[in-house]
Amino acid sequence: MKQVDKLLGYRSSIKVIDATLRDGGLVNDFFFDDEFVKALYKTNIDAGVDYMEMGYRASKKVFDESKFGKWKFSSDEHIREIVGENNTNLKLAIMADIGRHDKDDFDQKVNSPVDLVRVATYIHQLPEALDMIEDAHNKGYETSCNLMALSHVQENDLHAGLEMIGQSPVDTIYIVDSFGSIYPEEMARVVNIFAEFAEKYNKKLGIHAHNNQQLAFANTIEACGDGVDWLDATYLSMGRGAGNCAMELLIGFLKNPKYKELPVFKFIEEYMIGLKQKGIVWGYDVQYLMTGLLNQHPRTAIAFTKDKRTDYVEFFKDLML
Amino acid sequence: MKQVDKLLGYRSSIKVIDATLRDGGLVNDFFFDDEFVKALYKTNIDAGVDYMEMGYRASKKVFDESKFGKWKFSSDEHIREIVGENNTNLKLAIMADIGRHDKDDFDQKVNSPVDLVRVATYIHQLPEALDMIEDAHNKGYETSCNLMALSHVQENDLHAGLEMIGQSPVDTIYIVDSFGSIYPEEMARVVNIFAEFAEKYNKKLGIHAHNNQQLAFANTIEACGDGVDWLDATYLSMGRGAGNCAMELLIGFLKNPKYKELPVFKFIEEYMIGLKQKGIVWGYDVQYLMTGLLNQHPRTAIAFTKDKRTDYVEFFKDLML
Repeated sequence: MKQVDKLLGYRSSIKVIDATLRDGGLVNDFFFDDEFVKALYKTNIDAGVDYMEMGYRASKKVFDESKFGKWKFSSDEHIREIVGENNTNLKLAIMADIGRHDKDDFDQKVNSPVDLVRVATYIHQLPEALDMIEDAHNKGYETSCNLMALSHVQENDLHAGLEMIGQSPVDTIYIVDSFGSIYPEEMARVVNIFAEFAEKYNKKLGIHAHNNQQLAFANTIEACGDGVDWLDATYLSMGRGAGNCAMELLIGFLKNPKYKELPVFKFIEEYMIGLKQKGIVWGYDVQYLMTGLLNQHPRTAIAFTKDKRTDYVEFFKDLML
Repeated sequence: MKQVDKLLGYRSSIKVIDATLRDGGLVNDFFFDDEFVKALYKTNIDAGVDYMEMGYRASKKVFDESKFGKWKFSSDEHIREIVGENNTNLKLAIMADIGRHDKDDFDQKVNSPVDLVRVATYIHQLPEALDMIEDAHNKGYETSCNLMALSHVQENDLHAGLEMIGQSPVDTIYIVDSFGSIYPEEMARVVNIFAEFAEKYNKKLGIHAHNNQQLAFANTIEACGDGVDWLDATYLSMGRGAGNCAMELLIGFLKNPKYKELPVFKFIEEYMIGLKQKGIVWGYDVQYLMTGLLNQHPRTAIAFTKDKRTDYVEFFKDLML
């Protein structure tokens, strides 16, 4: 059993990553205005957050720029408009989504305000992901490999994949519960597998959880208790479908005095409630529990939400077909 | 580490207790109409729920009967109007809240449709609670002792209290996280303490969780994984403040084939959504996270909710005074 004294002390190796612009952007097509993003940036600094993900750097060859807010493409210029040269303790991240990115969009680190390139990949895309990681690493960035949809990966494949990731120059390997289907008891087991490879190859571990079964926070602190150091969260849980681990819950839990609750609550009060009032919808609901329970992609539940349906029984029957 | 194979198998000793009428009643002053209660009763039977709590049996000497729905008083007559002689596998429970109950309101079991009397008590009320338990036991009821506000109980007092409860004729001892302040890691430790006394005195253990930090379900399955058999839940989490462990999450988690998800979703669709639409408010929100985080009674957060306030920063500052 993990010891309660760990709850009073803290590990200084823990990092909190704000993924609001990126995962939250999936809810509003990345249409955050500059005032919001500047306030979020300032809040992260004040709250002691370690990294702020500035969105995706999606390829304009794949997505029509006119249909999305700029944080889907998050160029160095977009970022500089918010942060200048970012002379702060807050580091900046962007995400490259494998198959929807373009290596040429990433300049040398020395020319960029970005510190960390997070590479999101399904396991079958690993070779392309590792190519991207190597490119970003060689350009001078910190890198992470965010292995999505873990609950659909067979354990044999996971071992093979972690061996490949381990041999890459990546700094941090992420456990991503894309479907919110993992229970804390399973999370402990998953972390054990990842930890074996992290130790062998001297990598750090991260966790990115979804809230389909109201377990995003519980799984995050389970993983944290099991030794995972990089913890993703979003303000008011804003993120695709049922959303993510709530920043306000995570900062409340962590005992390192550098983390501050008040700026988090202030930002929620002044900015996040406004998004909700504008009708932007995310967060735990019965339809997301259903896809989580059945270990399915939430796209059907997102459509159900968009259509304002409440015929849960019909929906569940369809999912079980 | 708990083993993943436990997640596929099941313990037949597990019991699910529906506390919707009782804890949910705290949200709408127990004004559930008979159609709702009959549908809930039928749902519990169809879903394989083991016990249905039919409300409080509060003393009419303490509470004005005209100000509450009948499920605050839940007489044998009220219950019979719903269940007849209850010739089903679903057992019925009522709650006696120490200091607000009257032993004389409890007839001999042989004359009552009630199977289980749940005695809710703060630790300083234990002698009165044990008196009530003994009375109910002698009348022929199953009994449980629901030790509230556990997070305010010093460990020495807890040991002394569990020793007293152990020596009583009570069947089941409940861990009650009234303030939603306990993390799963602490829950595991708490269960260990309770289990020591449960084993010594041959008692069963139960868990009743609140969702202030989105941990009601996580704490319930943590406790379940640690050997706790009696699991409280409410439909759509309906309960005081942030609400309880959601029945739909719990039934989804449990693998005993007697538990069925579809009736649960049907009831939510046909009845629970209607309560929400009528403006009855419960469930996780930032103000409840705050009282949970600070290990405080949720009454201030309930007032904040009622006043439709969103000035979280001011509220949090007040809580920290």
